[in-house]
Amino acid sequence: MPQKTVYFGRFISTPQPNELLIRTGAALVNRKDGRGTIEKMDWTVGSPQDAVHKYGIDTPVVTAKDNGFFFPGFIGECFHSYWDLRNRKSLTLWTRKMANGCLQTDTHIHASQYPNVGIFGKSTLLDWLTTYTFPLESSLGNPKSPMYRNATEPPDPLARAKTVYNRVISRTLANGTTTASYYATIHLDATNLLADIAFARGQRAYIGRVCMDRPETCPEYYRDESTEQTIAHTKASIEHCRSLDVSGELLAPIITPRFAPSCLPETLSQLGALAKAEDLRVQTHISENLSEISLVKQLFPDQTTYTDVYDHHELLTPRTILAHAVHLSQDEMRLIKQRKTKISHCPASNSALGSGFCPVRVMLDEGLEVGLGTDVSGGYSTSILDAVRNACMVSRHVGYVNGGDSRYNLGVAEGLWLATVGGAKVVGMQGRLGGFEEGMLWDVQEIVLDEVDPNGERGETEVDIFGWETWEDRVEKWVWNGDDRNVRRVWVGGRLVHERQ
Amino acid sequence: MPQKTVYFGRFISTPQPNELLIRTGAALVNRKDGRGTIEKMDWTVGSPQDAVHKYGIDTPVVTAKDNGFFFPGFIGECFHSYWDLRNRKSLTLWTRKMANGCLQTDTHIHASQYPNVGIFGKSTLLDWLTTYTFPLESSLGNPKSPMYRNATEPPDPLARAKTVYNRVISRTLANGTTTASYYATIHLDATNLLADIAFARGQRAYIGRVCMDRPETCPEYYRDESTEQTIAHTKASIEHCRSLDVSGELLAPIITPRFAPSCLPETLSQLGALAKAEDLRVQTHISENLSEISLVKQLFPDQTTYTDVYDHHELLTPRTILAHAVHLSQDEMRLIKQRKTKISHCPASNSALGSGFCPVRVMLDEGLEVGLGTDVSGGYSTSILDAVRNACMVSRHVGYVNGGDSRYNLGVAEGLWLATVGGAKVVGMQGRLGGFEEGMLWDVQEIVLDEVDPNGERGETEVDIFGWETWEDRVEKWVWNGDDRNVRRVWVGGRLVHERQ
Repeated sequence: MPQKTVYFGRFISTPQPNELLIRTGAALVNRKDGRGTIEKMDWTVGSPQDAVHKYGIDTPVVTAKDNGFFFPGFIGECFHSYWDLRNRKSLTLWTRKMANGCLQTDTHIHASQYPNVGIFGKSTLLDWLTTYTFPLESSLGNPKSPMYRNATEPPDPLARAKTVYNRVISRTLANGTTTASYYATIHLDATNLLADIAFARGQRAYIGRVCMDRPETCPEYYRDESTEQTIAHTKASIEHCRSLDVSGELLAPIITPRFAPSCLPETLSQLGALAKAEDLRVQTHISENLSEISLVKQLFPDQTTYTDVYDHHELLTPRTILAHAVHLSQDEMRLIKQRKTKISHCPASNSALGSGFCPVRVMLDEGLEVGLGTDVSGGYSTSILDAVRNACMVSRHVGYVNGGDSRYNLGVAEGLWLATVGGAKVVGMQGRLGGFEEGMLWDVQEIVLDEVDPNGERGETEVDIFGWETWEDRVEKWVWNGDDRNVRRVWVGGRLVHERQ
Repeated sequence: MPQKTVYFGRFISTPQPNELLIRTGAALVNRKDGRGTIEKMDWTVGSPQDAVHKYGIDTPVVTAKDNGFFFPGFIGECFHSYWDLRNRKSLTLWTRKMANGCLQTDTHIHASQYPNVGIFGKSTLLDWLTTYTFPLESSLGNPKSPMYRNATEPPDPLARAKTVYNRVISRTLANGTTTASYYATIHLDATNLLADIAFARGQRAYIGRVCMDRPETCPEYYRDESTEQTIAHTKASIEHCRSLDVSGELLAPIITPRFAPSCLPETLSQLGALAKAEDLRVQTHISENLSEISLVKQLFPDQTTYTDVYDHHELLTPRTILAHAVHLSQDEMRLIKQRKTKISHCPASNSALGSGFCPVRVMLDEGLEVGLGTDVSGGYSTSILDAVRNACMVSRHVGYVNGGDSRYNLGVAEGLWLATVGGAKVVGMQGRLGGFEEGMLWDVQEIVLDEVDPNGERGETEVDIFGWETWEDRVEKWVWNGDDRNVRRVWVGGRLVHERQ
């Protein structure tokens, strides 16, 4: 494979909230050390032929379709620790670069729950867990899972895990997610398999072996046996990820206490200590719905708030991603900000399960860093575009319940900014991953939009471009009706990881 | 074309709210008078071969795929008046039949606004109309429309209308909408063109020439000149529809005052009288958002409520479809019920524009008849499945703002029931159109769902069936992630009107 490639076409990104940047030119990507980064953005190049002329006949030129554009893919990695260890000089350089690209980041997704997308009835969080989620997750590792009760053949949980994990990675890549922060299950083998598959497929992924060991809140058929087991299995999962990718750049472990009610207090503390000792990322849930918050209050009477619970156990770190955060008090927001902890906003899930309306604007105004998550399968879709749609709609609901106050509204550009720059911040990758700037990794998706022919004949997708729309209009139409059919190609670190047939 | 056809496969419908009926068998459809109706449902037939054996080698057998099912299509017609005129005996017969099928009904869609799906920024209803909607609609008939300001070629509004109307009909058919109640524009030629296209394509359609003539609220470039012109053009549109289909069964006109603020009071009265004299359906908007309600109060100080305004002008009839109805008072609901007027719930639009949460459960409890509408392009999608998703999510929001009261929740079966039986009631077609019963028209869609192969290779759609799901689960997955790719074929009155390539 040649070391350099030129990508020519239209580039769209959201460097600022409310700013959609649209330019045509070329990106020269250099694939040294197996990692493709942007060596140079050249806005003077006007055609593929120009590119050949300028960069040499031996440099392949990849051209986006004229009715499409390059858009950054999704990331979910917090690199501060990595760069600290690897290259202090680079750290200073990278953190100084503002992430001005758009990377669609799936900062919160349960890979194991993928088969249940759309299956949640009229449940809300806590009964949803026991009715749908624990049975499904347990089936990826426990032949005695309730899901196998009526099985006609002997269960093969690992085979099931393989099918499920292959599919969810295919589906997320097809929807343009270049990096995902995954929750797997408690099972070590299946979690290691997720890591293997993600690494082989080339998606940038954080792999979280789920920790849950509190007997009162976890079913007998699905829980870690003790704090010792939780920590041992977590460590084994960490080792496995490191054996695949010691750099942690493409694949890395992430410490994953399911949520406070799921873990013994001692486990939470030890996980906090492990995250610190190993300099690892952490992910968990917070304040998703009101019943859950009451449960936390019952189980942790010594802490004032849900946020305090995590803080007390040293899990509130700059590398922690908290999913949901629908009902945080102002004090909680301030503490989260103080600790530089990040938020993953999961609007599809919050709406589908009736959890409430997350006031994203308030959190942004408080200075919190917010990205988007699909939260499959509280959320029904693997698509971050769908998350952007729902983020816009939920912001309208926040405005509506606040007397029609429009300042809460998020528009399309802002939704894409959250999904990209926001996500970059959430994973600590400002400047290293993110749009179309020198030094950034080439984690990118190529989007294509059909034009309607004058006879009005059927196009192949739900996005119909009539020809008179501006490119800003077209991006809006793409956000509201786009799907995987509009994602033509996806690259991670310069490697082509998905191509639509 | 042979007169009879047997359709064999799995049939799914929602005869009752919360009931998903799944059966395998055959439907014998007889296409007399060019209109295909179900002569018999035969649940004893176990295979296509059985069907041939039973119904004869010359009767074609159309088989749904094994990984799919027949589901009723969408309807939007109120047939009471038709049957009254045509066949009083039949009327008694038909009204006694309970609609127990599932027809997905798009009871509210602006065909002319299709190019703007997804384009609405952060606007709310009234500014959305002036910023996006009036310019677009006007461009389908007025060469001086603001949309042509920067045109590089001479405008050809009728050509534009043709392209737009062909596309929206293609798109709605592809999404399984067999009948749609359309708002066109004020322009007679373009509206007649919509009628021509719908009739040629075979979609069951109601064509509404939009009436708007109040100078204070309508832009100069887009309004009827006077009450006389409004009525004259409306009558001409009615005549044109009748010239295509005198029976009104496949294509019919529908009287369409845009909404109360758009029309002079005298116009509203004359439209009410015209609807009565011609025994026609009526469609309009009501109570979509709070600013609009205030506007109506200003413009109609003599009426107490928005509903009273329509009632006063004799527009509140059993054949009237009111879209939105987000903020009705209890008194208004009672009056609507008294008049037997119908409601078209448009959740995608209400969420996208921040209009509020329509309390569908309350309206159903009050005995109102409710169906679903896409409300393109307040709503961003032409898909009724998307409307079902949004209806479920909005019902969660209603529950949430009412202290987490779960009785407001709508689940998938109920959402589909609203989209089908609900829609049948809204258009007065109980027993004539609707699921799979003797005498019903064959307005049906064939749905297909991909099974994931054991290696987890990529399926072609966003719905992945792993094989262990029940059919109830599969329907839920279809609702939450289905799109036009899952709609393999669509029939209207037994005629194949869409087939996926």
